[in-house]
Amino acid sequence: MQAEIIAVGTEILLGQIDNTNASYVARGLADLGISVFHQQVVGDNGPRLDDAVSLAEQRSDLVVVMGGLGPTKDDLTKQIVARHLDRTLVEDEIAIKKIKLHYQQSDRLMGDSDRLQALYISGGHPLSNPTGMAVGDFIHQENWADFLVLPGPPRELMAMFSSEVVPLLKQTYLQLDHLTSRVLRFFGIGEAALARKLDDLISEQTNPTLATYAKDAEVTLRLTASGPSIQTNEARLDELEQQVKARVGDFLYGYGDDNSLVEVVIKRLIKANLTLTAAESLTAGLFQSTIGEVPGVSAIFPGGFVTYAAAAKTQLIGVPQATIAAHGVVSEATAKAMAQQARHVLKTDIGISFTGVAGPEALEGQPAGTVWIGLSMLNQPVIAREFHFSDDRQLNRRRAVMNGLNLILRSLPTEK
Amino acid sequence: MQAEIIAVGTEILLGQIDNTNASYVARGLADLGISVFHQQVVGDNGPRLDDAVSLAEQRSDLVVVMGGLGPTKDDLTKQIVARHLDRTLVEDEIAIKKIKLHYQQSDRLMGDSDRLQALYISGGHPLSNPTGMAVGDFIHQENWADFLVLPGPPRELMAMFSSEVVPLLKQTYLQLDHLTSRVLRFFGIGEAALARKLDDLISEQTNPTLATYAKDAEVTLRLTASGPSIQTNEARLDELEQQVKARVGDFLYGYGDDNSLVEVVIKRLIKANLTLTAAESLTAGLFQSTIGEVPGVSAIFPGGFVTYAAAAKTQLIGVPQATIAAHGVVSEATAKAMAQQARHVLKTDIGISFTGVAGPEALEGQPAGTVWIGLSMLNQPVIAREFHFSDDRQLNRRRAVMNGLNLILRSLPTEK
Repeated sequence: MQAEIIAVGTEILLGQIDNTNASYVARGLADLGISVFHQQVVGDNGPRLDDAVSLAEQRSDLVVVMGGLGPTKDDLTKQIVARHLDRTLVEDEIAIKKIKLHYQQSDRLMGDSDRLQALYISGGHPLSNPTGMAVGDFIHQENWADFLVLPGPPRELMAMFSSEVVPLLKQTYLQLDHLTSRVLRFFGIGEAALARKLDDLISEQTNPTLATYAKDAEVTLRLTASGPSIQTNEARLDELEQQVKARVGDFLYGYGDDNSLVEVVIKRLIKANLTLTAAESLTAGLFQSTIGEVPGVSAIFPGGFVTYAAAAKTQLIGVPQATIAAHGVVSEATAKAMAQQARHVLKTDIGISFTGVAGPEALEGQPAGTVWIGLSMLNQPVIAREFHFSDDRQLNRRRAVMNGLNLILRSLPTEK
Repeated sequence: MQAEIIAVGTEILLGQIDNTNASYVARGLADLGISVFHQQVVGDNGPRLDDAVSLAEQRSDLVVVMGGLGPTKDDLTKQIVARHLDRTLVEDEIAIKKIKLHYQQSDRLMGDSDRLQALYISGGHPLSNPTGMAVGDFIHQENWADFLVLPGPPRELMAMFSSEVVPLLKQTYLQLDHLTSRVLRFFGIGEAALARKLDDLISEQTNPTLATYAKDAEVTLRLTASGPSIQTNEARLDELEQQVKARVGDFLYGYGDDNSLVEVVIKRLIKANLTLTAAESLTAGLFQSTIGEVPGVSAIFPGGFVTYAAAAKTQLIGVPQATIAAHGVVSEATAKAMAQQARHVLKTDIGISFTGVAGPEALEGQPAGTVWIGLSMLNQPVIAREFHFSDDRQLNRRRAVMNGLNLILRSLPTEK
């Protein structure tokens, strides 16, 4: 089964926005065992969209057209695809009610063009839009390419894809087989190194399959099994997971798609009721801001310090001037004192510290990318670890934060 | 002149990475007055790349092929394009010397496949790679489409595009005309609203042209003039800029491509020698982390506070418990006290504070997105501003930070 993705929109064509919809849909289809062989981008232009559709239906079994479902005169996608397939457009009753209600509630008049968003191609399956007004469409055709029409705004596309499209495609294309996925999350190993260690499994396995994805210093591995029942699939995934763990289990930190390192760490701390503070120098608040992304973090995080200047390290948390004078700010001793003192001031169970050379310039004779992370935990000796990153200021700061989170995770008592 | 972009790479096709090269090149071509009409993506597959090239050369004047120039057996781009154009591949002497030197210096043996990176299509113009090994290529053909072949890694592509491609395309396509661009940066107005206010200029102007781009709550406007001399162009840009300023000058904060709001603010503070601290609640360090992105910020930023819990607001910076009890943490009074107290503790010229409801849940009976920003400046009465954002936690935190920067900028004495 070959799929093709057509993104419609002048703003993508001219590079004003990245085509993140294409990568999202390509990954989503891959998870269903459907491979994308071509992608196209065309502007908001009827004849060129029509040409793109003609080309796609000749070489692909499923054509996904994204964007151009809105109410303006630039939005042509449904009209062009309907005419191309020699079908009419009909109004989806549920969608038209939703649009009417929206205008009533916001006390504005509904225009004729607003109705256009409720149209779908006759004979197709209308797809409701959980976060917007424009309905999508799935047209299944015997002996000819199928069409999937989706809205352009990424929030709408993603919501519709996960809630409407995935079940429908499973039902249409995978009636006999169940598909079961499991996501393993790794930190501390690069994507290339992970792929190397699993090379034979990745290239030889057909069921379950393995695929790696990298993002922000984390790597995820998706295992996907298909079979007659979920039980069979789970058993296959269990077996493969054991093989993976035997090779790279040391770097595994969690499971699931929406479960980043920071979420895993904060959830563990909340569960164990361990409070946390931080004293940050080169990261300048990025660690605390990152844990601030997790809803509910206030249960274990009272606040903390950005001690950017040497004097602030002494004034705000009481790092001894003598320590800084003897060892410098980028040192094991200063990192340890910062972690310990921050914890003492705010009386938390854990204190973490970051001091180093963000770059691009060197500092105290130490090259950009030199970072010390200190960790002080109740009833444990304070520790500090040294890292050597690159000369990229923003990257160094992000990598410091990720390594700090990993250090905390590895220092927590094992979960029962 | 119509251009077309073909990205080659299975990792893009399957959505493992976003096709950011396409948007980068499309913007770069637009700056040269060259419009992109089509984009394609194909995998590392010879026949499908050949088909994509055939299609593109029939409908476009310039075909940009990106990716697949490396040394592995998957890298086929130059071979396919050369065969398609019935040309041979020849070795670039400078590139081969560079590759040899690289292997000598890293004490490794050069393989036969490494030589492939030095090949270019005969009759073409080899493009040197400032940050990598693979040479690019520009093939100018009378009466037929031109080809531009670029490396896939974004760092290499961007460096080659700006240092090699832009001058070459200017020379080839714009021999008579000079092209001059000017970027105006806005905050506090959305892209749609800006476009609406400049609608007639954007749609009617052909020289200079105007184009808007939006990113992270900032909007930039690029004015591009072409003419017989830079002086003529600058005069045209001056005239258009005056028209733009008359309509939306209130929102203009700076000029230039790499000059974000935070950079403008920090540069102004460094120049005026005004020191800054912050007390952050909902933003949890994001403001301080954002100013930490700017090299040299240490000259005016000693450090600051993340006062997440109410008790930390009192303990760390001395916000009176009575203020919080009487008004709540999300209030004008608390925002003002936080800004003032943070400034007093660290004896800076400016103190800024952020307190509010990040979301997704409401707090103290106030809906998610309610934010107070306080600002205390030497010799000026402390102020606070209220904002109402959305229910998106991360977006609210980022918008609070951007509005805080804007508030500081608008409160600084006018530059002479």
